[in-house]
Amino acid sequence: MPSVTVTRRMRFNAAHRVFNPAFSDAENDATFGKCNNPNWHGHNYTLDVSVEGPIDKRTGYVLDLAKLRDTVEREVVGVVDHRNFNLDVAFMKGVIPTSENIIVAFWKILQPAVSPGRLSKLVLWETENNYVEYSGH
Amino acid sequence: MPSVTVTRRMRFNAAHRVFNPAFSDAENDATFGKCNNPNWHGHNYTLDVSVEGPIDKRTGYVLDLAKLRDTVEREVVGVVDHRNFNLDVAFMKGVIPTSENIIVAFWKILQPAVSPGRLSKLVLWETENNYVEYSGH
Amino acid sequence: MPSVTVTRRMRFNAAHRVFNPAFSDAENDATFGKCNNPNWHGHNYTLDVSVEGPIDKRTGYVLDLAKLRDTVEREVVGVVDHRNFNLDVAFMKGVIPTSENIIVAFWKILQPAVSPGRLSKLVLWETENNYVEYSGH
Amino acid sequence: MPSVTVTRRMRFNAAHRVFNPAFSDAENDATFGKCNNPNWHGHNYTLDVSVEGPIDKRTGYVLDLAKLRDTVEREVVGVVDHRNFNLDVAFMKGVIPTSENIIVAFWKILQPAVSPGRLSKLVLWETENNYVEYSGH
Amino acid sequence: MPSVTVTRRMRFNAAHRVFNPAFSDAENDATFGKCNNPNWHGHNYTLDVSVEGPIDKRTGYVLDLAKLRDTVEREVVGVVDHRNFNLDVAFMKGVIPTSENIIVAFWKILQPAVSPGRLSKLVLWETENNYVEYSGH
Amino acid sequence: MPSVTVTRRMRFNAAHRVFNPAFSDAENDATFGKCNNPNWHGHNYTLDVSVEGPIDKRTGYVLDLAKLRDTVEREVVGVVDHRNFNLDVAFMKGVIPTSENIIVAFWKILQPAVSPGRLSKLVLWETENNYVEYSGH
Repeated sequence: MPSVTVTRRMRFNAAHRVFNPAFSDAENDATFGKCNNPNWHGHNYTLDVSVEGPIDKRTGYVLDLAKLRDTVEREVVGVVDHRNFNLDVAFMKGVIPTSENIIVAFWKILQPAVSPGRLSKLVLWETENNYVEYSGH
Repeated sequence: MPSVTVTRRMRFNAAHRVFNPAFSDAENDATFGKCNNPNWHGHNYTLDVSVEGPIDKRTGYVLDLAKLRDTVEREVVGVVDHRNFNLDVAFMKGVIPTSENIIVAFWKILQPAVSPGRLSKLVLWETENNYVEYSGH
Repeated sequence: MPSVTVTRRMRFNAAHRVFNPAFSDAENDATFGKCNNPNWHGHNYTLDVSVEGPIDKRTGYVLDLAKLRDTVEREVVGVVDHRNFNLDVAFMKGVIPTSENIIVAFWKILQPAVSPGRLSKLVLWETENNYVEYSGH
Repeated sequence: MPSVTVTRRMRFNAAHRVFNPAFSDAENDATFGKCNNPNWHGHNYTLDVSVEGPIDKRTGYVLDLAKLRDTVEREVVGVVDHRNFNLDVAFMKGVIPTSENIIVAFWKILQPAVSPGRLSKLVLWETENNYVEYSGH
Repeated sequence: MPSVTVTRRMRFNAAHRVFNPAFSDAENDATFGKCNNPNWHGHNYTLDVSVEGPIDKRTGYVLDLAKLRDTVEREVVGVVDHRNFNLDVAFMKGVIPTSENIIVAFWKILQPAVSPGRLSKLVLWETENNYVEYSGH
Repeated sequence: MPSVTVTRRMRFNAAHRVFNPAFSDAENDATFGKCNNPNWHGHNYTLDVSVEGPIDKRTGYVLDLAKLRDTVEREVVGVVDHRNFNLDVAFMKGVIPTSENIIVAFWKILQPAVSPGRLSKLVLWETENNYVEYSGH
C-alpha cells in the first residue's frame, strides 16, 4: 500500500517581540536587532501541516483534509491568529517566540491531535524570505 | 560524483468528481462534501517531477530537462490536460480521482518512463492550499 | 476626503466546457480546441473584487471587508464553487462560460449587492497566465 | 515622448491594533472584530510605489529606481518596519491604522519626496487576500 | 455591449547591459551601477499583454487568446527569448535596453500586430520587485 | 533538544551560456539548444540556504539568520549577482554553468563558511519551472 504525504497550508497573522528577558537591553539589541522592538511588530505566517500514511481504499484519502484543517484551526491557528505570541498564547509562555520555538510548540500540540494520522513535517514561513521546518526529531 | 535532484514543474487543468460508487448518496455527501458534485468541478493542477542522479561531466546536466518535459507531457500531462479524470483517463479507471490516487498513478507511469533517470519525488498541488507528495514507497 | 480602492481576493474551483451549441462539432473544435471537451475540464479561479469610496472617519475603512467578503460569498462564490458553470449556475444559463462572460455576469450581480459601495473593478484569473478585467462599461 | 509608469515593490513588517478610542469596547469589538485585539497583531506588508513620466533619453529610465527605493526606505518603510503603527509612528498619530489610512499617509509623504517625479499610484497589500490602492484623489 | 480587458501572461529570459555608449566609464558606473557590467547579466522577464474590446457573441471571447499568444510569441517573445538585448535584437539597436525602452519597443510592434484588437496595456516585470507599464501614450 | 531546519531565501541575477567548449558547434546546438546562444542569456535566480541544528536556549534561534544572510551574500550571492557565470566567476572556471554545477560549487563554498552550523540543503530556482536541490552527497 503506497504511503503518500498530504499537506494543508494555513495562514495567520500575529504580533511578537523577540527578546530574552534575562538579557540586558544592550544584549537584546545586539542579539535581536529590530525584532526586539518593545512595542512589538508582526507577520503574516504561512503554516504547512503534513501528514503521511497509506491511502484509504474506501475514500482515496490519506485522511480527510477538512478534518485536518479543523483540527489545526482549533488547536493552533485559532489560538494564535490576530494575537500576540508573547502576551496572548498560553503554550508560548516563558519561551522566546522565534519561528523555531513556535514550530516546536505547534508540533507538540498537533502530533497527538492528528493521531492516528502520522504528522510528518511542519513548515512555517515568517516572511517571504525565511522559513523553518521541523519533523519531530 | 555529487548526486543532485532536478525538478521540472508542469501544469494542467482537469475536471473530476470525488466519490465512491459503492457508497450511498448520503455516504458520499458525508465523506466528500462539495467534491461529490455529480456535475463535476475542476482545478489548475501543478506537478513537480524530480529526478535524482550524478551530474554528467560532458553536459553539466543530471538529465536533459527538455526531454524530461517531453516525456512527462506525452505520458501524463498531455493525457489529463483539459480532461475529466473520471471519464477520460484510462489509467484512472476504477480509482477515486483524489490527488493521492492521481499521484500514485502518475508515479507508476513516470518511474519506468524516465529510466535510466531515477524518479525521486512527485509533488501535486490541487489548490493553493493543498498538495500531496509521493516518493514511490 | 480621499477616495481609496479596497480589494478582497477570493478563490473558487469550477468545471466548464467552452462551446457554442449553435456550432457544428467541427466548428466548436476549430474555435475552442481542448476547452471544448464534452466531458468538461476545470480551474482554480481567483477573483479580485474592488470597491472605491471615501474613507469613513469613524472606522478608517472604505467599507467593512468582512461584509464585502460575505456578500461576494453569498452572491457569487458560494453559488459557483465546486460547481459546473454550464449545468449548475442559473445566472450563466444560455451563456458561453468564458471568463469574459463570467466576469460580466458577476458584475451584474455584485454591482447592486455592494451598494452603496461603488464596485470599481473585477479581475478574474482562470489560470496563472490568463486573466480578464471589467469595470462595468 | 512616451510616458511610462515604473514601480518599485518594497516590504515591511509591522504591528497594529484597529480600533477607535472614541468607541466603547463593545462597539470596537462589533466593528473591528479580532483586529481590535488590545495586545496587537501584525502583518507582512507589501508596498508598490509607482511613478509616471517620460523616458530620459540619456539613461533610458523614467527615474533612477535605486534613488526611488532609497527615498521610500528613508521616508516611510524605514520608519514603520518592525514598528507598531499605533505607538511608534508619528505620522499615524490620532489616525486609525487601517490600510486605507496608512496608504493616504504614505502618499502625503511620498508625493513631494519623489518630486519632480510624478507619484501615480500606491498599492498596499496587508494579507495575500486584501489590498488597497490610492492615486491621490 | 460590455467592453472587457483580457490579458495573456508570457515569460522569457534574456541578457542585457544597461549603459550609454556616449558616456565615459565613470559616468556609466555612476549612473547604472552593477547593471553596467560589460560582461552582461540577465533576467527572467514576465510580460502581460492586455487587449480590450467587446465580447464576441458567437464565441464569448474578446479575442482568441491562443492567437494572441501566437502573435506575441512570433513578434516579440520568440525574438528576445534566450537572447542578448544589446547584441541580438534588431528592434533594440541604438536603444539602451532598460525595461522602459523595451516596453515601448514591444508596444510599437504589438499594437499593429494585434489589430483589430485594441492593445490597451503592457506590463513588464524585470525582477520580483520592479515592473513597468505602458498604455501607448 | 529538537533539531530544526532554518532557511534563508536570497535572489540574484546573472548571465550565462550553457555549452561545452570541447563540443563542435553542431553538438552544442543539439545538446543545449537556445541555452547555447554565444551572446549569452540570463535569469533571476532564487537560492534557498538551509541550516539544521538544535535551538539555542538563550536566543531561540538555530543560528542568527542575519549572519547567515551576510555570509551567503559575501561568499556567493555578492560574487555572482549581476555577473556572467562564464566570464566573471572564478569558482566556475572550467565548469559548464548549469544549475547543477552552480549548486555544487555553492555548496563547496558555503558548507565550511556556515560552520559550526550544519548546511543541510541548497535549492536553486533558475526559472519558475525549474529548480535543483543538493544536500552534499
